[in-house]
Parts: sequence; structure tokens; C-alpha cells
Amino acid sequence: MALAGTALPFDDIRDLARAMPALDSEAVAKVRQRDSQLTKPPGSLGRLESLVEWLAAVQGKATPTVSRPLVAIFAGNHGVVARGVSPYPQEVTRQMLENFSAGGAAINQICTTFDLGLKVFDLALDIPTGDITVEAALDEKACAATMAFGMEAVSGGIDLLVLGEMGIGNTTIAAAIYHALYGGEAGHWVGRGTGIDDAGLVRKTAAVRDAVAFHQSHVKDPLEVLRRLGGREIAAMAGAILAARSQRIPVVLDGYVVCAAAAVLHAMDPALLDHCVSGHVSAEGAHADVLARLGKKPLLDLGMRLGEGSGAALAVSLIKAALACHTGMATFAQAGVTDKA
Amino acid sequence: MALAGTALPFDDIRDLARAMPALDSEAVAKVRQRDSQLTKPPGSLGRLESLVEWLAAVQGKATPTVSRPLVAIFAGNHGVVARGVSPYPQEVTRQMLENFSAGGAAINQICTTFDLGLKVFDLALDIPTGDITVEAALDEKACAATMAFGMEAVSGGIDLLVLGEMGIGNTTIAAAIYHALYGGEAGHWVGRGTGIDDAGLVRKTAAVRDAVAFHQSHVKDPLEVLRRLGGREIAAMAGAILAARSQRIPVVLDGYVVCAAAAVLHAMDPALLDHCVSGHVSAEGAHADVLARLGKKPLLDLGMRLGEGSGAALAVSLIKAALACHTGMATFAQAGVTDKA
Repeated sequence: MALAGTALPFDDIRDLARAMPALDSEAVAKVRQRDSQLTKPPGSLGRLESLVEWLAAVQGKATPTVSRPLVAIFAGNHGVVARGVSPYPQEVTRQMLENFSAGGAAINQICTTFDLGLKVFDLALDIPTGDITVEAALDEKACAATMAFGMEAVSGGIDLLVLGEMGIGNTTIAAAIYHALYGGEAGHWVGRGTGIDDAGLVRKTAAVRDAVAFHQSHVKDPLEVLRRLGGREIAAMAGAILAARSQRIPVVLDGYVVCAAAAVLHAMDPALLDHCVSGHVSAEGAHADVLARLGKKPLLDLGMRLGEGSGAALAVSLIKAALACHTGMATFAQAGVTDKA
Repeated sequence: MALAGTALPFDDIRDLARAMPALDSEAVAKVRQRDSQLTKPPGSLGRLESLVEWLAAVQGKATPTVSRPLVAIFAGNHGVVARGVSPYPQEVTRQMLENFSAGGAAINQICTTFDLGLKVFDLALDIPTGDITVEAALDEKACAATMAFGMEAVSGGIDLLVLGEMGIGNTTIAAAIYHALYGGEAGHWVGRGTGIDDAGLVRKTAAVRDAVAFHQSHVKDPLEVLRRLGGREIAAMAGAILAARSQRIPVVLDGYVVCAAAAVLHAMDPALLDHCVSGHVSAEGAHADVLARLGKKPLLDLGMRLGEGSGAALAVSLIKAALACHTGMATFAQAGVTDKA
């Protein structure tokens, strides 16, 4: 990326967001043409058919590919954990990154099962963001630089991007972003995250309420919501989503925290998520509500709430199978099967 | 199977159904014990966790396997197609079997994607069953022999069975079975199958209504429902489900037609389906209603309605990933990750 390494001011990010490529309707028409000849009743593969159309529209190819899918996990630490919002100590963020490196986490097993690449990005874990209940998480320069870092992570010829995250305290951060963007009661947006008890849930809800109240006069601007209430992993994922959009790389969104990055971009312009599908609906907090607001129907609903990109990576199996059906099936003519009267 | 090749009278099938092994609660306890030590918050893998418990309970192993999964497709032809219930001619059943052999169907691509075995069983395609609107589909001897054939198909050391079917006209057959077992209006159970038009839908609904009315005095006995209103592929699948239950092989059910075989057994005794999960909910007819009656929550809901075992085979990807997480993840102690306070 030309933008790599520079501290991109928000105005430049807004310019980038306005200069996205159109979806390729001609590629979609070619996919539909082929689909109509395949040995199955029209429409009988349901969502598998629309997934291939989506891949074609984003990639701009009548025969899309999922040959180099990558799961990118972004990890950050959060000042708000001082408010007692998680049952796990902050050092678990780094410990889990070591677990990812050693191949011991859930996401490692899922990537191995479906032959997905995995990269983990450590975002200054030793410097937690500011406690959002009393200050901004990041200043504009740091937020923009982190977004640029996320943009840079999208490279190397990948043809599908799965976003994941790790960060003790980041469901609190995500809840604060949703509360700022969508209003309502703080409690509506707060779930139990990694499994906080009742007293912790009260603290977590108070932290979200206090944070949004503190920054209330700035929440009209989605990028201000991101820098004030966000975290480094969320800023980096927002950058990665933007870079994927401009590079025509389809994105599979994971759960509650990943969608907070998507929600910031959606608030800027819903078309910024045209290259994204929802991998799954999480059991965390109000994720189903978030997905409805983003206009994304989840591929999976399995009660998962782990993060790490686990639900989205699982959904890649469906996308791979959808593409295999589209490219590998015989036509009625090839197979000598009599088509519908 | 000792029963292979013999024409099993229904009484012997009833005896077999009463002699099923118990689920292994000790294996489940061991799975839960290990799960509690894995590097994730308790419960955060949602349904993936319960899938591993289910595999353990059925297989009777604390470390279950999915090393030799098999998709078994049973195909039959149906006299009821004379009533104009399908837009495709009956020869398509055999043509699609040739397509399966040549690797050109959707199920072939899904099996290749997830490394699943595939076997196709041709059930006397040249001798369609009787037209259920005016006669029984099969006599007891033929029905019992077909069930025995399905039992025999379950062998060869497989550790997961996916059921699929092919048979022009068989959504009409399935609808008749549901209407006989569950009552209600015939129209409630009838969907568009491979895509019948409005006039065809009227014919199809009339055929289901007429068939159940004709056999009404015999529908109290589920095996009589099977032989009178069923088809060979459905009888064979009922046999396969029974054999898998007795051999401790987990089964993944596919859509509307496969579940008709399951529904017959469920009506005999709900515990006969303890080794089954629902792979997906089909867009066909009242499949969601059927699954609710069977007490099975589908793993996938993707608007599919193809048959061939396609939705169930897709769901095996989730089961494989679930097992990979359970067996491959590090424990908190192994990874040096601090557990919850």
C-alpha cells in the first residue's frame, strides 16, 4: 500500500473511502448464466449460489477463486480493563498470541481443517489504549497509523480475508462503539464476553455508559467514535476492511468485536461493506441486532462467542464448497441429464 | 449384518429397534472434563462443543473420530410420478446416478472439498413403486428386504454416516408420509420440490391428500406408513439409520426426504434417532416443522433444497472442525495461559 507507515489523517481516510471500485455486475451475470446450466433445479443450492455471485462481484471475475484465503487476527490491549470488565487478566492477550504461534488455539485447528492461512498482528500490547471512561482510547495520529497498519496487512495475493481479533476487554470496547453509534440503553449492547459474573456485568455496563457519556459530544463522526471509544485491533480491522474493499478482496466478518470495526465504516457509508459477508452470529451481547443494522445475514448460527475469527473461519468451509459446486459441477448438456420440461 | 439378504418381517425390525445400545454418558463426561481445560472461555465454542459430546455418546469413545465419514445416497423411482407431481421426467433419477458416478453433481464437489467418501445405491430404478394414490408402494416383504439392503450399506468401518437420496417424485412421497404421521392439511406438507409450477402444485397436493385418504385405516403403524406411502430409497434409509444406531455410528440427516425415513423411526420410538443430528433445514415444504417434531435443531440454514445429501455433507465440515478443536487445542496448563479468576 502507498499509505503504509504514514500517519494518515482522517481526511485522507475519508477520501479513500469515497474512491472505492464498483461491484462487477457483468461477472455476476456470467455466474448466473453458468449456474442455470448446472445439473440441479434452479435455486436449489440456496445461499451457496449467492455466495458465488458475491465472490464474482467483489473480485470482478466470472470465475472467482478462493485459493489463498487468509485469517488475519489483530490483537490489542485496553485501558478500560482497569474498570474490572473481564474475568481474565490483561496478560492473557499476549499469552493467547503465544498460543496462536504454537498452534494450540481453536483458530489454529479450524485453519488446519480447512487449509486457511493464519497471520497474527500484535498491536503494541504493552501500551494499552486510554481508559475510554475518562479519556480517548487513541489520538488521531495513533488511530490513523493503526488503520494504516491494518491496511498494510492486506497484501500478498490473498483472495479472501477473514478477520479475527484477540484482546482482553474488547467486548466492552465494541459495546461502547455500538452504544455510541446506535444509542439505546448501554445494557442492551453489553454481554458477558469471556464470561463475567453478575457483579462484573454491572461494572461493564457502567463502563460503557460512562464512556459514551464522556465522549457524547463527538459521536456524530464515526471515525471519532473509533478513535475515542475503539481499540487498536478495531482500528486496524477497519483499515483492513477498507484496504480489502479497494483491492477487491472479499471479507468474512467474525463476531461481536470484528463487527464493531465494520459498524464504524458502515456509519460512514454502507457501501464500504459491500465486499463483506457475515460468517456467523455470535452468542455475545446484541450481535444479532448489529448484523440486522449492517444488513448482513449470518452464514452460521452455532452459539459461538470465542472471537479469534473462529466463526468466520468456519464459514469459509461453506464458501469453498459453494465455489467448488459452481466450478466443478457438470452442465445438463455435459452430463446428458434431461432438463426441466 | 446377520440380517443381510433376508426378507425381514416387520416384527423382527420391531425387535431390533427395541435392542439398541445405550448412549455412553461416561464418554461424554470425559469430553466435558477435557473441554473445561482447553484455552477458551467455557462454552465459547457453542454448538461445536455439544457436537463432540454427541459423537462421544454415540461412538462410546472419550476421543471420538471422524476419520472415515461416508455419504450414502439411496435412489428410487416412484409410481406416483404418473400423477404429474414433478417437472422432471422419471429417467432423470438414473441420469443423475450416472452424473454421481462421473463426479459431476453438487454432492461430488462437496465430498471432494471435505474429503468424504461417497457411495450410491440404486434401488431397482426400473421397477417404480406402486402409485400410492391407488395402491401400496411396496408389500411387506419388499419393504423389509429394502430396509435390510439399507442396513447392509452401513459397514466397512465408517465412523460417520451422511444420508442422501435421489428420486424424481420423492418429495411427494415424503409429504405423504408426514401427512400420514402428523395429520393437518395435505397442503401444509407439500412444497415445490424441484420447482413444480402452480398447476403442478395443485396436482401434487391432491396426490398427497388422495394417498393418505386411501391408506387412512393403516396409518397408526409407522412401518405400515413406510411400506404403503414410502419409496425404496426411504425404506433403505430407515434401515441404514437403524443399522447405524445399533453399530454406534453417528448419522447426519439431510433434508425433507431423508427426514421422512427418520420420522418413521421416530414415530416408533424417538430414541431411535439419538445418534442423529440434523445437517440443515431445507427450503422445501415444511421441513422446519418436521425438524421441530423430531426435536432436531439444524446445523445449517442456507435455503438449500437439492437433496443428494448436499446440506448434510456440508454440515460435516462443522463436525470435523468441532472435533479438531476438541482434540487439537492446548490446555491452559500446556499453553501457559492464565485461566479465569
